[in-house]
Amino acid sequence: MNGQPTVGERLVIGNPGEDIFAFAAELYPICRSITGHGVRKTLRAIRSHVDLEVHEVPTGTEVFDWVVPREWNVRDAYIRDQRGREIVNLAGSNLHVMSYSVPVHRWISLAELKQHVYTLPDQPDLIPYRTSYYAENWAFCMPHRLLESLADERYEVLIDADLSDGSLSYGEYLHKGESEDEFLLSAHICHPSLANDNCSGVALLTHLAKRMAEVKTRYSYRFLFAPGTIGAITWLARNEESVKRIKHGLVVSMVGDGGGPTYKKSRRGDAKIDRILAHGLRHCGLKPTILDFSPYGYDERQYCSPGFNLPVGLFQRSQFGQIPEYHTSADNLEFIAPDHLALSYRLIAEAIDVVENDGIYRNVVARCEPQLGRRGLYGAIGGDKGTADANMAMLWVLNLSDGRHSLLDIAERADLPFSLVRRTAQILRDHGLLSVCDIGAEGAR
Amino acid sequence: MNGQPTVGERLVIGNPGEDIFAFAAELYPICRSITGHGVRKTLRAIRSHVDLEVHEVPTGTEVFDWVVPREWNVRDAYIRDQRGREIVNLAGSNLHVMSYSVPVHRWISLAELKQHVYTLPDQPDLIPYRTSYYAENWAFCMPHRLLESLADERYEVLIDADLSDGSLSYGEYLHKGESEDEFLLSAHICHPSLANDNCSGVALLTHLAKRMAEVKTRYSYRFLFAPGTIGAITWLARNEESVKRIKHGLVVSMVGDGGGPTYKKSRRGDAKIDRILAHGLRHCGLKPTILDFSPYGYDERQYCSPGFNLPVGLFQRSQFGQIPEYHTSADNLEFIAPDHLALSYRLIAEAIDVVENDGIYRNVVARCEPQLGRRGLYGAIGGDKGTADANMAMLWVLNLSDGRHSLLDIAERADLPFSLVRRTAQILRDHGLLSVCDIGAEGAR
Amino acid sequence: MNGQPTVGERLVIGNPGEDIFAFAAELYPICRSITGHGVRKTLRAIRSHVDLEVHEVPTGTEVFDWVVPREWNVRDAYIRDQRGREIVNLAGSNLHVMSYSVPVHRWISLAELKQHVYTLPDQPDLIPYRTSYYAENWAFCMPHRLLESLADERYEVLIDADLSDGSLSYGEYLHKGESEDEFLLSAHICHPSLANDNCSGVALLTHLAKRMAEVKTRYSYRFLFAPGTIGAITWLARNEESVKRIKHGLVVSMVGDGGGPTYKKSRRGDAKIDRILAHGLRHCGLKPTILDFSPYGYDERQYCSPGFNLPVGLFQRSQFGQIPEYHTSADNLEFIAPDHLALSYRLIAEAIDVVENDGIYRNVVARCEPQLGRRGLYGAIGGDKGTADANMAMLWVLNLSDGRHSLLDIAERADLPFSLVRRTAQILRDHGLLSVCDIGAEGAR
Repeated sequence: MNGQPTVGERLVIGNPGEDIFAFAAELYPICRSITGHGVRKTLRAIRSHVDLEVHEVPTGTEVFDWVVPREWNVRDAYIRDQRGREIVNLAGSNLHVMSYSVPVHRWISLAELKQHVYTLPDQPDLIPYRTSYYAENWAFCMPHRLLESLADERYEVLIDADLSDGSLSYGEYLHKGESEDEFLLSAHICHPSLANDNCSGVALLTHLAKRMAEVKTRYSYRFLFAPGTIGAITWLARNEESVKRIKHGLVVSMVGDGGGPTYKKSRRGDAKIDRILAHGLRHCGLKPTILDFSPYGYDERQYCSPGFNLPVGLFQRSQFGQIPEYHTSADNLEFIAPDHLALSYRLIAEAIDVVENDGIYRNVVARCEPQLGRRGLYGAIGGDKGTADANMAMLWVLNLSDGRHSLLDIAERADLPFSLVRRTAQILRDHGLLSVCDIGAEGAR
Repeated sequence: MNGQPTVGERLVIGNPGEDIFAFAAELYPICRSITGHGVRKTLRAIRSHVDLEVHEVPTGTEVFDWVVPREWNVRDAYIRDQRGREIVNLAGSNLHVMSYSVPVHRWISLAELKQHVYTLPDQPDLIPYRTSYYAENWAFCMPHRLLESLADERYEVLIDADLSDGSLSYGEYLHKGESEDEFLLSAHICHPSLANDNCSGVALLTHLAKRMAEVKTRYSYRFLFAPGTIGAITWLARNEESVKRIKHGLVVSMVGDGGGPTYKKSRRGDAKIDRILAHGLRHCGLKPTILDFSPYGYDERQYCSPGFNLPVGLFQRSQFGQIPEYHTSADNLEFIAPDHLALSYRLIAEAIDVVENDGIYRNVVARCEPQLGRRGLYGAIGGDKGTADANMAMLWVLNLSDGRHSLLDIAERADLPFSLVRRTAQILRDHGLLSVCDIGAEGAR
Repeated sequence: MNGQPTVGERLVIGNPGEDIFAFAAELYPICRSITGHGVRKTLRAIRSHVDLEVHEVPTGTEVFDWVVPREWNVRDAYIRDQRGREIVNLAGSNLHVMSYSVPVHRWISLAELKQHVYTLPDQPDLIPYRTSYYAENWAFCMPHRLLESLADERYEVLIDADLSDGSLSYGEYLHKGESEDEFLLSAHICHPSLANDNCSGVALLTHLAKRMAEVKTRYSYRFLFAPGTIGAITWLARNEESVKRIKHGLVVSMVGDGGGPTYKKSRRGDAKIDRILAHGLRHCGLKPTILDFSPYGYDERQYCSPGFNLPVGLFQRSQFGQIPEYHTSADNLEFIAPDHLALSYRLIAEAIDVVENDGIYRNVVARCEPQLGRRGLYGAIGGDKGTADANMAMLWVLNLSDGRHSLLDIAERADLPFSLVRRTAQILRDHGLLSVCDIGAEGAR
């Protein structure tokens, strides 16, 4: 920690937003589901950036209360009218087919068709995103206006899809640090063409893993790219013992829009990652939303199930389900932007910086203040109304560095950004005013 | 708990409001005080509904710092002018005579009369309610306008009353449950014609006792009908040891008006009854007032005295002393209504339901979520914005049922009605997803 | 405590404000700094009222991280223009010379002069207060308008001052009580002609010490009059062991203006002195500001350094740095007033009264309420809406006097002034309803 850039600083090079956006755009068109070629194609794309370990888990494998499902692949899908005109077509948008639809090829009446069509009457121009993983069914999704425009005639419906034994795919990348203690970073990869949910998260973590490969860290960082729910469950079932190493974790999704930022705490509520994100977001310049844990959301549901209760929170920009674009065709590449992705990335990098650099120090001159003026550390001219602010960080670090308070404790109590407190502690160490008690300790709180 | 109606549900049959109101109306005319025929008549009326055990404690009996007072009975009382016209008359309202007035029969001047008359100048048409239990005195109460209309002449005042040795009367009814642990329900019976304070409370508890006689319960329920203060003190003095069985308790008064609801916490502040009422009232649809304990009020003053410190709170609609009708002739049968009584009754029945049905369970599939879809417990179609709400109760019960959190803990944390959480737990038990840890346990909080 | 006036009451005789103001006015003209004749003259003035012990600590003495500086004395100082007209002069205001300026006597250009002049452009008519204790420099302070009016010519600047070995002076007065436990009262004496900061504090503590000399107390009271920062550090260095006796403490500064009152908590945050001041100020009738500890301020910075962490808070009227007069020539005798000083004095006397009289009692009649009416302690006529308020203090003391809650605990929970709770406890003791458990105990909180 002698003046060199910190881990968090080294993770941010150039404008990460452009790189993350470009990769999200590359992933966007792929037709993904919880299993099948789309997921594999996505994992291959990630592997072109990171040394990803891809796992295939056969259909039928029991994972806790669940069973790995059959593999779903769709080749073609359309609805045609009597004159053969295509109403919708898989090529137009992979949202048109309800994910995991069973194969079908028939002529049916408009009335019957309507029983197999999902629309959003209150958002009549958008295609909804629908899935039916665990109930055998088939359906199309389309704009409500389009459905209403259909004449009362017969239609040819085709879904050329396989539902057959295969395997579930997920990818892992472990960045080894000095310690075996792990920081888990997890993104779901099962949604088709939804840019924010979750091409944004997959691309952000891919960029982070790529950068991290060049940085020495204290913690080990485990990146998990898996289908939502069943993927996380499968991974937990196959790593039941080793997850005990996870000391901090974040589920990353919907990080490309301009909302939030939002952090949902882990089930524990007072895990260090909860304090780090709550503090970091409070000082990010935007109006953050800090939510208590609730059992609805993304894969934190599995990580925070009572049998695991891992210290894993959820990081997002807008809160899922709270925006009109959520799970619709409006969640496209125009809904996300490089600047938003860059800020999301920076906030996560700062959280990592706290994890890497928090520690407990002791003020060497514990009795009364040290004479900062003599060391040129303090405004030499007293009495000026301004000096107070300029020196608060230094005074706080000296006052609370009693071997019990960590830098994060101090940043919280002083209501100052962690980065300022960390830099201040560095200056004080360089002047011999702080001694190291315990790097990476939890502190009094 | 296999699908049958719960204790709380079985306590509510038809419209309890009508029955409670009818009995309150029957009690209203009786001229009560802390001792005497009025109290006995009231206890007899209750006994016609419940198998009440009536106790008589002789005048002069020492009860802690107090002594059971002489018995007061009034036969007639009036003020007449020189022409023999009656100004006020006991038959007109038993509020006209200050309770425990010593006998008097004299001709006095208006000036002297005024020294023995209470009015409410700011509510000139109402008769105030006054007592003088512990200072020998006599007085009349009347509307201020009436007093001001009196000519400056001499008046005949008569209070034909006895203050003589007798006994203090109170009644108890114990509903035996599986356990000897008791839930105390207490109402004061010393006020004369005041409908809300407390014919309403006496009638509500009588109805509750009547219903409860037909229900099997885990807890035993002790109903106490006693004069305020001295009655509660006398009962406590004679049951000093057995009150240790009281695990929950409510003082019930002023439950017939449309205000509140109001709950005043026990001195402990965090007793389970305090949590149950605070939670229940928050979800009753009205704007409840939850008050911290204070040593002024009804008989919770005695139950919560430091030597007992029982977990007994006060349930009311409007808060005592906070409404203009309080302790005036405006607290009459028009001030209370069946619907208000019915809601008050339901809220108490729900509190009993929590006491009877709270418990700690364990999620059998603790690692990751169980597959609710397969069991038809979960919206089979994912991705719909609505499903979140619909399934929250189930997800909360599964997530927090770790052998430490009780259903009440879960209801509080999830901010959902206890009844919904309880029903959800029942469904999950029926599907083998929850195992019983400890029924009636207090939980983590 | 048998009905005689309490310590706090005996400390307030006549109108203390006049006496304190008169002494502040006497101290105001003296040209003080952290060392030198001005400090000694100030200590002599205090000693004319109190049996003060004055200490002299030689230049060069090491005190923790600091060294006692050379002694600074200024005889004359001026700026003259080419025609010999004086622009500023020490006699005009001792703020004109930056404290600890090194000697100088030269002719310089306006441009060079400006590099040695401090002004307040946003308060152009005021002289700022500046010091340079630890950087060798010289400067003048003047109104901004005056500086702007200066012609572009050469000026004669003279600062006839010594910076030479000598000693640092501070004064102590110890009022011995029954116990060796101490209450520290500390005021800085280093500021020149600033009336509120801190002639007001010095004069208030002098008056308090004078009064206290005539009162028997349980605690011992140590009054410290020392230069800011270096004086407190020097005193702490020479009393490192004995400061362990300090159980409560207040730094007193800026107590003569009409703002606040303000209390800044000790570093501990929950020290008894913190609770006492927070409670007392909440009931003083003004809108107080209660601040959490922060390491910027007055000598609480030293007392609350991690190596000492003493229970010492800061009492002020307006908060330092928050008012335009702060550290300017507007902090003069017109800025402070006897009434403000009197209220500040009373609030400190009340805090001392809590320290002296807080204690834990036990309600002798713990089971149920005692019969207050029989003892004439309670409104004999029940049912009146008013009696509640009138009796709350008595009911609270009886209800919470369980051998665990102190009178301060009770005053806080009942939200009543400590003095009312104390007087009520006295009455109850006189009637044999309270027994003494532990005088001076901390209570449950």
